[in-house]
Amino acid sequence: MTLRIGMIGPGGMGKAHIERIHTVISGGRVVAVSDVNPDNAKAVAEQIDGTAYATSAELINSPDVDAIMIASYGPAHKPDVIAAIEAGKYVFCEKPLAPTAAECEEIMAAEQKAGKKLVTVGFMRRFDASYREMKKILDDGEVGEALMVHCAHRNPTVPEMYTWDMAINDTAIHEIDTMRWLLGEEFVSARVDKPKKTSLRFEHLQDPLVLILTSESGVRVDDEVFVNCQYGYDIQCELVAEQGVVRLGDQELVHRADKLGRRNRLTMDHNQRFGQAFVTEVQEWITAVSQDRHTGSDSWDGYAAAVVCDAGVAALTADGEVPITMIERPALYA
Amino acid sequence: MTLRIGMIGPGGMGKAHIERIHTVISGGRVVAVSDVNPDNAKAVAEQIDGTAYATSAELINSPDVDAIMIASYGPAHKPDVIAAIEAGKYVFCEKPLAPTAAECEEIMAAEQKAGKKLVTVGFMRRFDASYREMKKILDDGEVGEALMVHCAHRNPTVPEMYTWDMAINDTAIHEIDTMRWLLGEEFVSARVDKPKKTSLRFEHLQDPLVLILTSESGVRVDDEVFVNCQYGYDIQCELVAEQGVVRLGDQELVHRADKLGRRNRLTMDHNQRFGQAFVTEVQEWITAVSQDRHTGSDSWDGYAAAVVCDAGVAALTADGEVPITMIERPALYA
Amino acid sequence: MTLRIGMIGPGGMGKAHIERIHTVISGGRVVAVSDVNPDNAKAVAEQIDGTAYATSAELINSPDVDAIMIASYGPAHKPDVIAAIEAGKYVFCEKPLAPTAAECEEIMAAEQKAGKKLVTVGFMRRFDASYREMKKILDDGEVGEALMVHCAHRNPTVPEMYTWDMAINDTAIHEIDTMRWLLGEEFVSARVDKPKKTSLRFEHLQDPLVLILTSESGVRVDDEVFVNCQYGYDIQCELVAEQGVVRLGDQELVHRADKLGRRNRLTMDHNQRFGQAFVTEVQEWITAVSQDRHTGSDSWDGYAAAVVCDAGVAALTADGEVPITMIERPALYA
Amino acid sequence: MTLRIGMIGPGGMGKAHIERIHTVISGGRVVAVSDVNPDNAKAVAEQIDGTAYATSAELINSPDVDAIMIASYGPAHKPDVIAAIEAGKYVFCEKPLAPTAAECEEIMAAEQKAGKKLVTVGFMRRFDASYREMKKILDDGEVGEALMVHCAHRNPTVPEMYTWDMAINDTAIHEIDTMRWLLGEEFVSARVDKPKKTSLRFEHLQDPLVLILTSESGVRVDDEVFVNCQYGYDIQCELVAEQGVVRLGDQELVHRADKLGRRNRLTMDHNQRFGQAFVTEVQEWITAVSQDRHTGSDSWDGYAAAVVCDAGVAALTADGEVPITMIERPALYA
Repeated sequence: MTLRIGMIGPGGMGKAHIERIHTVISGGRVVAVSDVNPDNAKAVAEQIDGTAYATSAELINSPDVDAIMIASYGPAHKPDVIAAIEAGKYVFCEKPLAPTAAECEEIMAAEQKAGKKLVTVGFMRRFDASYREMKKILDDGEVGEALMVHCAHRNPTVPEMYTWDMAINDTAIHEIDTMRWLLGEEFVSARVDKPKKTSLRFEHLQDPLVLILTSESGVRVDDEVFVNCQYGYDIQCELVAEQGVVRLGDQELVHRADKLGRRNRLTMDHNQRFGQAFVTEVQEWITAVSQDRHTGSDSWDGYAAAVVCDAGVAALTADGEVPITMIERPALYA
Repeated sequence: MTLRIGMIGPGGMGKAHIERIHTVISGGRVVAVSDVNPDNAKAVAEQIDGTAYATSAELINSPDVDAIMIASYGPAHKPDVIAAIEAGKYVFCEKPLAPTAAECEEIMAAEQKAGKKLVTVGFMRRFDASYREMKKILDDGEVGEALMVHCAHRNPTVPEMYTWDMAINDTAIHEIDTMRWLLGEEFVSARVDKPKKTSLRFEHLQDPLVLILTSESGVRVDDEVFVNCQYGYDIQCELVAEQGVVRLGDQELVHRADKLGRRNRLTMDHNQRFGQAFVTEVQEWITAVSQDRHTGSDSWDGYAAAVVCDAGVAALTADGEVPITMIERPALYA
Repeated sequence: MTLRIGMIGPGGMGKAHIERIHTVISGGRVVAVSDVNPDNAKAVAEQIDGTAYATSAELINSPDVDAIMIASYGPAHKPDVIAAIEAGKYVFCEKPLAPTAAECEEIMAAEQKAGKKLVTVGFMRRFDASYREMKKILDDGEVGEALMVHCAHRNPTVPEMYTWDMAINDTAIHEIDTMRWLLGEEFVSARVDKPKKTSLRFEHLQDPLVLILTSESGVRVDDEVFVNCQYGYDIQCELVAEQGVVRLGDQELVHRADKLGRRNRLTMDHNQRFGQAFVTEVQEWITAVSQDRHTGSDSWDGYAAAVVCDAGVAALTADGEVPITMIERPALYA
Repeated sequence: MTLRIGMIGPGGMGKAHIERIHTVISGGRVVAVSDVNPDNAKAVAEQIDGTAYATSAELINSPDVDAIMIASYGPAHKPDVIAAIEAGKYVFCEKPLAPTAAECEEIMAAEQKAGKKLVTVGFMRRFDASYREMKKILDDGEVGEALMVHCAHRNPTVPEMYTWDMAINDTAIHEIDTMRWLLGEEFVSARVDKPKKTSLRFEHLQDPLVLILTSESGVRVDDEVFVNCQYGYDIQCELVAEQGVVRLGDQELVHRADKLGRRNRLTMDHNQRFGQAFVTEVQEWITAVSQDRHTGSDSWDGYAAAVVCDAGVAALTADGEVPITMIERPALYA
């Protein structure tokens, strides 16, 4: 009864998923691997005592593979996702679902043809216990209607190859998905403010920046993206509602008092901060798939993230607000 | 050696200052009172065993009065401030110094003629221990250059007479002054974002709103103004700098754990939150004046606040950013 | 390669372990069950599609069972633990290992004869991320030598059948094991202080009480045991060392501000507070056993807990300190 | 109407009081000084433009002095306090009121003869906003009856001349008074536990130690006294009551996040931590005396502190609990 998973494109994230599935997750096993680099596929397959497939298509269509995980480079996602759909297999695809909204639409078309939601996009924050508690408080009506959300996404540093649009497409995309999920609404406009730049990193980068999103009902979300903040991986979120505000907790394990003050240790990367969320995300996916159920972000979420990211990137160079237009939501994703 | 103070226009704030001066502050005494309502002047004078003057001019020019406090209605400030300057007396004027930038310029002209800074504007947050600690950390270079500041100014509720522009002129004016002081810079533009409105208060009000200011060097300040937040008087400030962030503490006296969780009590109004700052402000003013020194916000600060508020009010109805232009800073205020 | 586990005595705790193993843990499966109540064994076996054995001995010796979990009533533990040892199988035994030190010695004798550590006692706090961080800080020498530890173990309420000695044997036993592990030392004396009793629970109970333990090197541990504190399941621990103190964090997911103050939600029972620790404990046991390694608390820890509990129970009625004497530590447990 | 105060024995504490009275406190002025060292009296008198008296008796009986503050060495307090009482003048005496219970009884006898409470003992914590909030919560019945209090009194270091008994008489005396006031009860026994000693200070000192007090109704107070904790001046207090617990807040002005974690700055001495409490204490005393009212700790409080300290010192070398016996409380102090 173990779910036999085929992994496409195991780089850092894919290998981390394999490690989780084989050491701390119930009910699944990665039994097949493919990669654009066949040597990598072979090496990983050997480590897990699995099969290396020459192509992702062969892996997807193998009768020995029950479900698919895609951790390859974003631009390569679309054909594999569609192939998995056509094979009638559940597929977990790392974010982004695809780099363009048009590709996401193609995926949704294939999925609608299949008549069933098969695609899960890897937005792990929906599985973080703190965000979930925040959403529960909001959904339970304990603080009234949401009016604003203040977010911050801070990384200690990024490498030189990090480009300006990655601040939206790789970094802010997490808040974009999480806020859509938290609020249960789409965004209708994006704007980017450009504060004074830090001198402690590359000249080519506008860092920090502030992405401002407005939802259908008017909720205003601001997201400070500061990827060279030096001090830690610091994810902040404060929901301001009509009758109260809710903030993510400090995530402290212990605090100490010593000559440096009363203090706790900060997380330094997303694996530290969201390590448990990744585990929960993959566990819930394996559990759901084993029961023939969908879970997590779906193709529409992947599409919506792409559309909002496009607007965010446009806003990087636009003067003022950039409107966001989406296609009508297909019934499958209602 | 007690400083003999004349109080003009003792309403709620003026009476609170008298109470402070007479019960918990060293070195001063309110000995004279005037008011547009002579009965009020008389009543207050009686309580403090002082003299009621028929006009503010008489009070200001009395040889029995060493220094002046003005707590009257803003539009009435200018002539009294100028009269005090012309009398060569130090004057503490509640904010705003005057409702328009033009009036503030007249005051600065009079002060420059006097050749000496005599005017202190009542921005009490500069005397709050937490804001002072934040400024010290910044000025000491412990976190590098400031890049952004996230502020929130939340009141439980406001009365129906509270109008839209008061969100800027009465409420955000505090962050405007405090941020100018914290950063040691002027602002060059203002914008107002309008989130979803709370349903828990008057239809005529855009509440909350977000005022966004940019400083000369590019520091971006956002100030969430939410004056019907229901739950408390909650003043937040997070300074984001190149090497670290600094936030105002929780101001908790105690915290408890009981059936409602682990919690502390929130302050419910500005007197609770800034009670000690008011005391320190007036104490430092009396001490300084007794030593023939200026302290606190000066006329230029009053002018700058007026100019920024004008831009903020214009931004309420403008589409996008409103530029802020100030006159050249006179040497007296360098 | 899945570890086939036999479960003896699945009541509440045993069923929770089965649920974990089958839904969120990797590498194991409960395939066999036995119980003093054969109907319960049959019912559980049916649910998990496993085999019900008539006796624990049969289950332990079945060739279809790789490792044993014992979740039966404490007084029943010893023979099953010894039978597992004699069968050469790893055995996870819920605390207490056995109710008396003498029985624990018998278990150690069997284990020494086997020449290998096979027994793990279910003290889950060693697997809690916060306690582990505290121990790491201490072991890394970041705060110098430990001098004192202040603990509190608070439950909302206990049922009427909870007797006085259970405050030691069922409740404080957790701090006894955790402190031995944290400090890496044995305790040499115990005392119990009896504060004013809460009026909000049964007359027969001395609640709260304070257990005071002294370690070999003189570290003083106090443990406030308050099992009818009404407000929550609140586990506190503050390590006081030569150069700093370390406290368990608040475990808050989010905090909110509303009309009740700034607050977070408290955990209400040990499953909420230590849910993840239970998962980690069982996961690490399954992983270790699959690699033929021991992990977690061993028989000596079970023995030491029994001895300290005996002293603690004696201290309930003694006047002053009760000395603690242990046998010499066998080489197997060095 | 300014209260004319005579200061006896202005050392560090006395000079700090003078500074407060002359710079941040309303309604009083130190006009007279005496000291066992006449040069010191003269020097201080000169600074404040006051009169140096040759003896404390002359100062006390001067018609130019309305009220007395005593900041001399503890053993010198009694005759001056009694002289002030006999002169019918209010007297603020720094702690301890007198080093022995017998001397305190003499003072109470004099005061009863005078028929009026004239003596205030300088226990400043009763004026700390956090302790007051804790007491208010308890007195308002918000958490039910008090059962235990956990205190810690930590100093960074003490000088070599600090002797063992000072841990009780100079350090723990603050918790002794504060707990009597918080609980509204007397203590009936004392015990001292001796944890492992810090290696970071003098061999002659038992540091830390834990003083355990039991009140009439059975409330158990433990006070960790650790005067070479290295890291800060850290005063902790957690009240455990039937329906909830209350802890002193962190006293943080701001917290920051930087490479050392999320942290706030600790206070390093009692002036930092209790600076405002000292101001409030002296202000309330001056206000009360000006209105012919008593305020703060009285002679009975001074006596009770002496008796409990005696028991605490005895407990340093006793085996187990030391009973505390007090005289019957005179009606004047009911």
